Amino acid sequence: MRVIKRSGESEEFDPKKTVNAMVRSGASDEEIKGIMEALEPQLYDGITTEEIYSMVRRMLQGRKAARYSLKKGILRLGPEGENFETYVSRLYRAEGYETKTRQFLNGRCIKHEVDVLMTRDQERVMVECKFHNYLGIKCTIQIALYVFARFLDVKEGSNIDRPILATNTRFSQDALQYGKCVGLELLGWNSPEGNGIEALAERHRLFPVTILDMRKSDQDILLDNHFILVNDVLDRAKDVRRLLSKESAESVIAQGNEILAC
Amino acid sequence: MRVIKRSGESEEFDPKKTVNAMVRSGASDEEIKGIMEALEPQLYDGITTEEIYSMVRRMLQGRKAARYSLKKGILRLGPEGENFETYVSRLYRAEGYETKTRQFLNGRCIKHEVDVLMTRDQERVMVECKFHNYLGIKCTIQIALYVFARFLDVKEGSNIDRPILATNTRFSQDALQYGKCVGLELLGWNSPEGNGIEALAERHRLFPVTILDMRKSDQDILLDNHFILVNDVLDRAKDVRRLLSKESAESVIAQGNEILAC
Repeated sequence: MRVIKRSGESEEFDPKKTVNAMVRSGASDEEIKGIMEALEPQLYDGITTEEIYSMVRRMLQGRKAARYSLKKGILRLGPEGENFETYVSRLYRAEGYETKTRQFLNGRCIKHEVDVLMTRDQERVMVECKFHNYLGIKCTIQIALYVFARFLDVKEGSNIDRPILATNTRFSQDALQYGKCVGLELLGWNSPEGNGIEALAERHRLFPVTILDMRKSDQDILLDNHFILVNDVLDRAKDVRRLLSKESAESVIAQGNEILAC
Repeated sequence: MRVIKRSGESEEFDPKKTVNAMVRSGASDEEIKGIMEALEPQLYDGITTEEIYSMVRRMLQGRKAARYSLKKGILRLGPEGENFETYVSRLYRAEGYETKTRQFLNGRCIKHEVDVLMTRDQERVMVECKFHNYLGIKCTIQIALYVFARFLDVKEGSNIDRPILATNTRFSQDALQYGKCVGLELLGWNSPEGNGIEALAERHRLFPVTILDMRKSDQDILLDNHFILVNDVLDRAKDVRRLLSKESAESVIAQGNEILAC
């Protein structure tokens, strides 16, 4: 049986990939076995990987569903980078920083717009966010060099102590080596190892609203109204009920409760 | 009468633009008057700016035709950046540098590929080339920052004294200000003012082979065989005659002679 990938290419269906994604989400062996059995009769030649993803997503429960959907959920914050910048700033706020997004700062040479400006115990940190609209690509050395040069200029002009580069993908080997060498902290998928963006999300239970199962049009409404986190849906449930149809609103709120309850 | 631009948009024909381009190429008032008169009966509603450009190009003589075609000629060295890197290295060779293209150099932190590595009187200079496939856009501050950070790393690892960023367009205001402030030399269209890439080309009579009037397929053959400059056509006329049809070869060689003679 062949499946159609996002890129339009087709390949032989490999159940191992689906199983591995569930393992990473924290599902038990038993759960995985059950889901694979329920999945099988629904598969057909020419099914898209996206459809398989959605079916699995609906069968996973609560926090596991959140983990399973996180990478795609962050991707859905795009196509512009602004929502990702806000998401990153919310993660760091949970780490004890005061944060402001999209600030103009004087450098020694020129004025810069810094995506997130953060302070904690006298320390002033700048975060530059690089949002990618495709998974599977890596944040390159060019980006790391560019961010470090921006830091050097801002450091002198506005007393910034250290720089962070945050992305929703992984980093190239060069970028990792360079970052370590010059002192540019890299936050990305599993970067730093075991303490990447997915670990921060999990630790603070801060998941993007886009991991919830809903229509694209409802997603757009929520994002346009500054719902970035699942928590925002629960904190402003009244607004959700005003903005979405009754059915959609209740589904989204129930999913949110399930994810944050456990 | 309306003309169709490269972008597909149409606009009212403005003879001033055509006149100005000829003024910049060094044509006399009389010449311009003659060309505009010859042009007029050939214009029609819906003509492309590209066709007008070609007609004017054919009516201009020698060095003026070269100047008129330079920006577009450099653009035709693409779509990849390699030919532009070679062109830039040939310009600097005329300025007395020894040059090597695409060299791998150790930085303090990582290894870098440097587009042009140059030496002159003990001084070692790196040139990073940024080739744009569209005119009208500007080389951004991101590129300038990135190149400067690369220089800082290579400087320590490989004793590089100073960096140059070369492009085939203009620079953004921020990039110009930053370059001046940190000591990153910017070579581009009319950068430095009055001494940009077009001035270097003119001073040393180094024009890209792509300014000559010929079929795209002939252009591709010449570029694939490492003809980068008009001079290369004259230096290797025998090869040109072997590679192109008799008629094309003689036309190209005659044009080259005319441009370099005056």
